[in-house]
Amino acid sequence: MPRYALKVEYHGAPFSGWQRQADAPSVQGAIEAALARLEPGAHTIAAAGRTDAGVHARGQVAQADLAREWDPFRLSEALNFHLKPHPVAITACARAPDDWHARFSAIERRYLYRILCRRAPPVLEGGQVWRVSRPLDPAAMRAGAAHLIGRHDFTTFRSSICQADSPVRTLDALDVEEVETPAGPEIRLHVRARSFLHNQVRSFAGTLERVGAGAWAPDDVAAALAARDRAACGPVAPPGGLTLAHVGYPADPFTTE
Amino acid sequence: MPRYALKVEYHGAPFSGWQRQADAPSVQGAIEAALARLEPGAHTIAAAGRTDAGVHARGQVAQADLAREWDPFRLSEALNFHLKPHPVAITACARAPDDWHARFSAIERRYLYRILCRRAPPVLEGGQVWRVSRPLDPAAMRAGAAHLIGRHDFTTFRSSICQADSPVRTLDALDVEEVETPAGPEIRLHVRARSFLHNQVRSFAGTLERVGAGAWAPDDVAAALAARDRAACGPVAPPGGLTLAHVGYPADPFTTE
Repeated sequence: MPRYALKVEYHGAPFSGWQRQADAPSVQGAIEAALARLEPGAHTIAAAGRTDAGVHARGQVAQADLAREWDPFRLSEALNFHLKPHPVAITACARAPDDWHARFSAIERRYLYRILCRRAPPVLEGGQVWRVSRPLDPAAMRAGAAHLIGRHDFTTFRSSICQADSPVRTLDALDVEEVETPAGPEIRLHVRARSFLHNQVRSFAGTLERVGAGAWAPDDVAAALAARDRAACGPVAPPGGLTLAHVGYPADPFTTE
Repeated sequence: MPRYALKVEYHGAPFSGWQRQADAPSVQGAIEAALARLEPGAHTIAAAGRTDAGVHARGQVAQADLAREWDPFRLSEALNFHLKPHPVAITACARAPDDWHARFSAIERRYLYRILCRRAPPVLEGGQVWRVSRPLDPAAMRAGAAHLIGRHDFTTFRSSICQADSPVRTLDALDVEEVETPAGPEIRLHVRARSFLHNQVRSFAGTLERVGAGAWAPDDVAAALAARDRAACGPVAPPGGLTLAHVGYPADPFTTE
């Protein structure tokens, strides 16, 4: 069966997450239902990042095995037609090698976490920011984030229901960007690693918000990491601020198109 | 009665427009209802730009006359509390002089029109772009826009139901910006004038899209303007791409806070 790589954009709000569930709407379920309109029968797709309920994606990558050969552009157009009115869009599609796997071939994931600092509720940000009422100090957040870079046991920063075999991961980047937007000052966390633990980015974001607000000193992040104790983590930031921005592979599956 | 200046942000989708209507939700109606929670009775507010159904605002300015003296910050907080769950937010509030008027004192309006050029439907842009399927040529759009700058009879570019006494306006700027966004290439039209005619910016946007697509030559815009005939206008661009970005006054009513 020919395999296709799909680049997928979605708004997380109406979904219980990426993963298909029996009784709740999911992104996976929406795409599989669209595939069934093209080739009847059951479909099972896999994705690079199984995002949680409410988390968005700009550059999720999934794979689909189909019975017949499709022109990739026509396949993406047909899927987008059948995905309506769900807030899910296929933004790129390519024929993939049979030994390529959306999840296991991935060597890099990038996430974006957005924090908007202002009093008024955000009404034009499309539910894609975490609004905090007070200004944050990006320099302090950068100093706190520096402690997290590298290879560590991230037990403190993973959900208690995380199913990964090991809590050790290598964090390649956690950049704190300060942007003046029309809505007000925004802090953007750009986070990059080969793979992440469950709730890891939101645990970083919630902890670094505490540092930016002055409630934690930057060095408290190092102490929390060293504790290897979930109870040492700051609050977990809400899902709406998080977007899966990009998935990297040894060769970009979409450049051949 | 003390007068207050309100800076207002809103998402236009759920509203029939700024202006209060008997049987349809409006931004004015939502804010007046919130005011009535603070001071019982009927309220009538005025705004700098009476935006159409579906048009957004980042920097709308309105005025409200209240019976008692309010601390401006507390007034904005109370209004935002009572405005929930409408997508309307008061982002600044100040005591205004009695002879200041949100509409008649304004000397400049700025609008932003966003056009996203890609095939896939936009799902993370919050309904704030007009999606067109093909790339647009920004240089051609700039050449077309240049014909519109200055003082002209804009009969071609105003709605047939426009109630303004005169079709003559002075267009101060119509800048065509090309931006690479995570969603794809976007054209942003930044439009500035003392005042606008009904549907003027959307008429510009729809006409310039035709120029960017190559269906019109840039000089066809000059011919359309010279025709002073509504039938010579290009298609009117959809309201969701339009945002009232800013209203200017001889003195910024919000800097005194």
